[in-house]
Amino acid sequence: MTSDNKPLAKDLSHLLSTEAKSRKESNLKAAFVYKADPSIAFLGGGLPLPSFFPFDNVTVDTPKPPFKNTIIADVNSLKEDELTKVHVPKDPSRAGKTDLPLAQTLQYGLSGGAQSLIDFIKEHTTMIHNIPYKNWDICATTGNTNAWDSVLRTFTNPGDSILCEEFSFSSAIECAHGQQIKVIPAKVDLEGLLPDALDEQLNNWVGAKPKLLYTIPTGQNPTGGNMPADRREAVYKVCQKHDILIIEDEPYYFLQMDEFKQDQAARNYEQLEDHDTFLKSLVASYLNFDTDGRVLRLDSYSKVLAPGTRFGWIVAQDTFIERFLRLHEVSIQFPCGFTQSILYGMLSRWGQTGYLDWLINLKKEYSIKRDGAMDAMEKYMPKEIAEWIAPTAGMFFWFQIDGSKHPEFASKFNSDPAKLELYLYEQGVKNKALLIPGQWFRSEDVTEPPQKPLPVTEAEKSLLFFRGTYAAVPTETVDDGVKRFAEVVKREFQL
Amino acid sequence: MTSDNKPLAKDLSHLLSTEAKSRKESNLKAAFVYKADPSIAFLGGGLPLPSFFPFDNVTVDTPKPPFKNTIIADVNSLKEDELTKVHVPKDPSRAGKTDLPLAQTLQYGLSGGAQSLIDFIKEHTTMIHNIPYKNWDICATTGNTNAWDSVLRTFTNPGDSILCEEFSFSSAIECAHGQQIKVIPAKVDLEGLLPDALDEQLNNWVGAKPKLLYTIPTGQNPTGGNMPADRREAVYKVCQKHDILIIEDEPYYFLQMDEFKQDQAARNYEQLEDHDTFLKSLVASYLNFDTDGRVLRLDSYSKVLAPGTRFGWIVAQDTFIERFLRLHEVSIQFPCGFTQSILYGMLSRWGQTGYLDWLINLKKEYSIKRDGAMDAMEKYMPKEIAEWIAPTAGMFFWFQIDGSKHPEFASKFNSDPAKLELYLYEQGVKNKALLIPGQWFRSEDVTEPPQKPLPVTEAEKSLLFFRGTYAAVPTETVDDGVKRFAEVVKREFQL
Repeated sequence: MTSDNKPLAKDLSHLLSTEAKSRKESNLKAAFVYKADPSIAFLGGGLPLPSFFPFDNVTVDTPKPPFKNTIIADVNSLKEDELTKVHVPKDPSRAGKTDLPLAQTLQYGLSGGAQSLIDFIKEHTTMIHNIPYKNWDICATTGNTNAWDSVLRTFTNPGDSILCEEFSFSSAIECAHGQQIKVIPAKVDLEGLLPDALDEQLNNWVGAKPKLLYTIPTGQNPTGGNMPADRREAVYKVCQKHDILIIEDEPYYFLQMDEFKQDQAARNYEQLEDHDTFLKSLVASYLNFDTDGRVLRLDSYSKVLAPGTRFGWIVAQDTFIERFLRLHEVSIQFPCGFTQSILYGMLSRWGQTGYLDWLINLKKEYSIKRDGAMDAMEKYMPKEIAEWIAPTAGMFFWFQIDGSKHPEFASKFNSDPAKLELYLYEQGVKNKALLIPGQWFRSEDVTEPPQKPLPVTEAEKSLLFFRGTYAAVPTETVDDGVKRFAEVVKREFQL
Repeated sequence: MTSDNKPLAKDLSHLLSTEAKSRKESNLKAAFVYKADPSIAFLGGGLPLPSFFPFDNVTVDTPKPPFKNTIIADVNSLKEDELTKVHVPKDPSRAGKTDLPLAQTLQYGLSGGAQSLIDFIKEHTTMIHNIPYKNWDICATTGNTNAWDSVLRTFTNPGDSILCEEFSFSSAIECAHGQQIKVIPAKVDLEGLLPDALDEQLNNWVGAKPKLLYTIPTGQNPTGGNMPADRREAVYKVCQKHDILIIEDEPYYFLQMDEFKQDQAARNYEQLEDHDTFLKSLVASYLNFDTDGRVLRLDSYSKVLAPGTRFGWIVAQDTFIERFLRLHEVSIQFPCGFTQSILYGMLSRWGQTGYLDWLINLKKEYSIKRDGAMDAMEKYMPKEIAEWIAPTAGMFFWFQIDGSKHPEFASKFNSDPAKLELYLYEQGVKNKALLIPGQWFRSEDVTEPPQKPLPVTEAEKSLLFFRGTYAAVPTETVDDGVKRFAEVVKREFQL
């Protein structure tokens, strides 16, 4: 796309689904090339006239870069000079270069997204990822849930298998189940996928290999794991060897944080990073290793701006993007026009550097929240039975408890950690603290012959897991929740 | 939903697809009931805090009811007292009862749509349709293209058949083809489906009957046909007899017009209808005959407000709506938050009567456009070979030409109307007029054994068809287009 010296992606069209292969471009759309010719009386399209749209002059208050100390303030409380005022007119003749006029975004449009906004995102993508092949492209989605659904429709047929982390985003698993896809777990530790175990699993695979690996490499949901770059590279090579696509679902990519410092005095939230330091601190995405064009990156504004923007995008080789466009023409059509006008109005005024400022401030805010959660864990959670690593990305913290240390593990819970896990969850709720039991994220309920179950060590057989979040609630609530849950754990384990 | 005296819909769950039957509600979502309890430290959900959303005070200029003479004016040119100013704050504490605050709509939300907006639409639905059963419900979609895709996923399996008008919306047909669904044409005349022919076709059906009938009963695309109520009722009875669902795709429902008056002096655009007259003038939807709960109505703001709102809804029995919610949770999630806040902000200020005013004004505008197109047809199109009826709904006009009257029909076109049709299309483009050939809307390219082809009379064998639109262009352009196309027709037919 941007660098002419790079090679083209491999032709991986054999991995497309029956559905994706069957889509054609319509004659009707071909006729639309004539719409641009003003000499032709074009009576071809069933569009309403923009003069019939009852909307004009959309304005939105947004904060102004560099945002210092304003990010968690209500925008409404900011002074005039701390605001970036977005104003979007309907009529293109009244629109400036920072505008996507409503007459364009509220009309039927390109399924790929409005060009100016897509160009901004391409420029951003080039800044963040160093994609080693030339013909990558981007198309808009209505968020990563939509993107994942589209990926499954584009690459899998009913009955196919896919791989995912053994604990994974339950909604993504449900989406695959709905499409009659078998979801096979791949072994993880607290940092993420294990390349050697993955290779071993695929070497021993019985029957048709899985089409793709679904993974959340950064701030994994639910484990909070943040895969180091060298592991990502190793996983990429395994997938290359077995001809598997990698779907990196990366809503939390920009919620990366520095390592947790136990010493509160050593923390410095006031000194914000500069752009270069921030960019260098970001872990390499799978895109960076993607010499083949077998990575599809699902990106979204849901976690860094707002979920209700319902705007995301897929980065992949252009031949795949073209198939997504054909699918989206007959499913979502295109993302909401208001969201495209408002997002572009804000981002074009902020500029790429302003958006980086936003992300740097967000990193600070999430670091404060993560630190609060880890302080609570250190303070309350009994280390004799519980283990965790401080997350360096995302919204979640995750800990394991050794069930075998429970005095009635065998007698009351039949040595089944899932039973104890559910019991602790219920006792937690009674004690006014809700954390989610790990079993609700397990993909292995669908492991079935002929594939072998994942290897489990003796120690792992008695482990239970819980997921908490520090994102959705104030730090005091996290402290309360961890404290109350730890009370239950200590009481039940008689500590 | 609204009337307690009505019976419940029939249980039609046997018509659900494998995909729809397989969806479960997740444990995770069940835990979310505790989120509402303020005494619980809820560390369950991975949501960003609304204080991190960089958006506040969305304002939009919209016109003010009753809109007289303002509908095609740029909203920007209206005076202050002609405007309904929408203002939506982020914070619920600053929101009035006409607001859906951004803190709510930009957060992860209910897939069914924001409750206040859905309530407005339910009230509207009750006003327009008299649904004979009790447990109907509504869920939001991102438009009818999304809704249709969801309907297919919810009721059809690969290899199933569905029925649609023999000329139909090509994108809807493509969507079905992508899902490996066979699309079988049903016979129409210039007004729409023929109930007796449909019954005959289904009586002679070989193998598993089609799951559903996809139909655009009002302002059909491409034929512009507007089915009279008694025909709809008859088609409903046929579908009841053969246990088939009816999907009424109704984006053009509120683009209904009075009969075309050839006499220009008899037209009166100035005298707008009152609400009662307008409501009585609307043709009965399939919902009105739906004693079983076998109708799914796809409704949308795309044609009456703006396509880029990407907001529509499905009306159906609640058991079906529940299945759509499960699907949307793992696909579109929910419609864009900006669109929901802006739509509700405008509609709640307009009120139900203000929205009727808008629709009545829109009827006037489309009547002017339709009349302009029909005037051009009367003026230019040679009646010796061409036939049409003036549309009373929608965006399209449609006419047939008797190819057998072409001097070289046999010698040059092998008596194939499709060849002549394409030739005239190309000659039209050369003469700077683009109308779409009827063959691009034919669903019968997929009629295949064992079903019988539709019966065709001798006269029909030489018919060709064209679709024009009067919606997307000024009336002068329609006049130019029809004139230039008629020139080509007259030249080619040596008239």
